[in-house]
Amino acid sequence: MTKTDLARRVTLRMRETEGPTATLGLALEAVDIGSARVSMIVRKEMLNGVGTCHGGMLFTLADTAFAYACNSRNSATVAQQAAIAFLTPAMEGEVIVAHAQELALEGRTGVYQVRLATEDGRVVAVFDGLSRTLGRPILSDAEIDDVAVGAGAGAAEAL
Amino acid sequence: MTKTDLARRVTLRMRETEGPTATLGLALEAVDIGSARVSMIVRKEMLNGVGTCHGGMLFTLADTAFAYACNSRNSATVAQQAAIAFLTPAMEGEVIVAHAQELALEGRTGVYQVRLATEDGRVVAVFDGLSRTLGRPILSDAEIDDVAVGAGAGAAEAL
Amino acid sequence: MTKTDLARRVTLRMRETEGPTATLGLALEAVDIGSARVSMIVRKEMLNGVGTCHGGMLFTLADTAFAYACNSRNSATVAQQAAIAFLTPAMEGEVIVAHAQELALEGRTGVYQVRLATEDGRVVAVFDGLSRTLGRPILSDAEIDDVAVGAGAGAAEAL
Amino acid sequence: MTKTDLARRVTLRMRETEGPTATLGLALEAVDIGSARVSMIVRKEMLNGVGTCHGGMLFTLADTAFAYACNSRNSATVAQQAAIAFLTPAMEGEVIVAHAQELALEGRTGVYQVRLATEDGRVVAVFDGLSRTLGRPILSDAEIDDVAVGAGAGAAEAL
Repeated sequence: MTKTDLARRVTLRMRETEGPTATLGLALEAVDIGSARVSMIVRKEMLNGVGTCHGGMLFTLADTAFAYACNSRNSATVAQQAAIAFLTPAMEGEVIVAHAQELALEGRTGVYQVRLATEDGRVVAVFDGLSRTLGRPILSDAEIDDVAVGAGAGAAEAL
Repeated sequence: MTKTDLARRVTLRMRETEGPTATLGLALEAVDIGSARVSMIVRKEMLNGVGTCHGGMLFTLADTAFAYACNSRNSATVAQQAAIAFLTPAMEGEVIVAHAQELALEGRTGVYQVRLATEDGRVVAVFDGLSRTLGRPILSDAEIDDVAVGAGAGAAEAL
Repeated sequence: MTKTDLARRVTLRMRETEGPTATLGLALEAVDIGSARVSMIVRKEMLNGVGTCHGGMLFTLADTAFAYACNSRNSATVAQQAAIAFLTPAMEGEVIVAHAQELALEGRTGVYQVRLATEDGRVVAVFDGLSRTLGRPILSDAEIDDVAVGAGAGAAEAL
Repeated sequence: MTKTDLARRVTLRMRETEGPTATLGLALEAVDIGSARVSMIVRKEMLNGVGTCHGGMLFTLADTAFAYACNSRNSATVAQQAAIAFLTPAMEGEVIVAHAQELALEGRTGVYQVRLATEDGRVVAVFDGLSRTLGRPILSDAEIDDVAVGAGAGAAEAL
C-alpha cells in the first residue's frame, strides 16, 4: 500500500465514527500525506443570528480537514490549539472548500494551515492548527494488511 | 428597561434565527452586559473519530457565548478572529458550560475570553475572541419600546 | 519558605540570565503562584516605522510576564504558542504594565492571559499563552535550602 | 517604477525610523508585493532564562517581516492580531530567516503567515498575522516621483 493509500484508509476510518461528518455533510475531496481537502454546502441550519454561516460551522469544517491532514501518517494526533480569522461571510447554498496543509512537523508538534474558500476563490477564513502526536497508530498493522487484500480497494475507490 | 434586560432581549432575538442553537441544543444560562453563559450536553453525534467531543462542537459552543457577550449592548458585532486551546477531552453525556467575559473594548474592537468547563470544574478549553462592532443596533428603538410593554416581560422570564 | 517566596526566587533566577530584561528595562512589579506583573517604559528605540511602540516589544513584555507566571511553581515550563491582539497604540514615554494570570492548568498544559495596560487603565493589548511543563525544577532543592538561610532574604526584599 | 521597486522603497522608509531594526540587527533580505524576507543572528542579549532565543525576539523578527509584507503595496497597514507557535529552540549564533507571505486580502483585512527557519531548514516558529489597512499611503505621490529620478535608484541597489 502506498503512503497515499494509507492516508486514505486512515481518513476513512476516522470518518466512520465522526458525528459532524454526517450531520454537516462534510465531503472528503482528497487526502494525502500532510494534506486534505474537505467541502461543505452551507445549509439553512448552519446560519447564525445575522443570516450568514455560523463561525462554529466554518471552524468545524476547517478542524476536520486539519484532523485528516495531521493523522495522515497513521500516527494518532490531536489538536492542541487552533485559531481562525474570518475574512468574508459565507452564504446559504455556497460550497466552501477547506484545504489543509502541513507547514511544519518538529518532534511531536505540527503546524497546519487550512484555507477556506468558495468555489470561485473568495477566501472565507484562514485557520491555523497546532497538533500533538500521541505515539500510537490509528490503524494497526493487522488492519493495514487486511485492507491491502480486502475491502480496502473498494473503499478507496469510494474516495 | 435595564441594561441587563436589553442584553437578554438582544440575545433572545439572535437565538430565534441561529441554526446551531437548535441543532446542538445550546442552552442560555445567563447573559448580561459583556458576559454570557451557555451550556451544552455532549451527544453521540458530536463526537470525533476517537470518541471525544469534536473540537468544532466545543468551538461552536464557545463562539455562541462570545457572540452573546459581544452583542449584549445592542450594538451589532461580529467575530474577526478567535482561538481555542484544548486542555482536556469532553466525554459523551457531560454538560459543558461556556462562560464568556469581556476583557477589553477599545473603539470598535473587543477582546473576549470564554472558559469551557464541566460542572465539576474541569477546564475543557479556553477560547479567545476578537470582535468588531459594525455601528448599527440589533433591536431598533421601536422594537425595544414594544418589548418594554409587551411580550418582552414573558420572554425575559423564560430566560 | 512560602510558595510566594519560592515564586519570587524562581523569577529572580530567571532574570539573572535573560537578555531582554536588561535591554528593554523590564521591571518586576510582583509575582506569585500563577501570576506576575511586569512593567516597561516605552523608549524611542522601541518604536516602529509609524512612531508607536513596536508590536514585538509589547509581545516581549507580555511573554516575560507569562514566563514568570508559568514558572512560578518552580517547575520549568516553556511557551508552546502565544497570541496577541493589539487594541490601542502605546506611545513613547508611556509606562505599560503587563499583568499575567493563570486561567487553567491541566496536566502539563497551562493557559495564561496577560493584559497590557497604561497606568490610567487604557488597554494596549491582550496576550494569551499556552505553556508546557517540562518535568524538572528551575531551582534545585539544595538551592532552595540555601536561599532559605542566605542571600534569598535580601533578594526577596529587593523585589 | 515597478511594483517591486515601490515595495522596496516603502520598506526602506519604514526601516529608517524603526527602533528594533537597528537594536536587533534585522537584515532585509528581500521584499515584494505581499512578501518579505528578514533575517537575524541570535545574540547573547536575545537569550531567555534557559539559554535559548527569547520568544519575544523571535516574535519581533516575524512581526517585522509581516509588517513589510502587508505594507508592500504602499497602503499603510497595521497589525490587529498575531499568533506564534514555537517548534524548536533557536540557539546563540544561529541565523534565523523569517519569510512572510500573504495568504488572503479581502477588503481591509489581510492574513499573513511567517515561517521562521534556520539556514539548514529547521523550522523554529510559525507566525500568523491579521492586518488592517488604514486607507492612506506610506509614501506620497510626490515622494514616489522623487524616488523615481533621484536617490531611489541607489537605495534600491543597497537592498
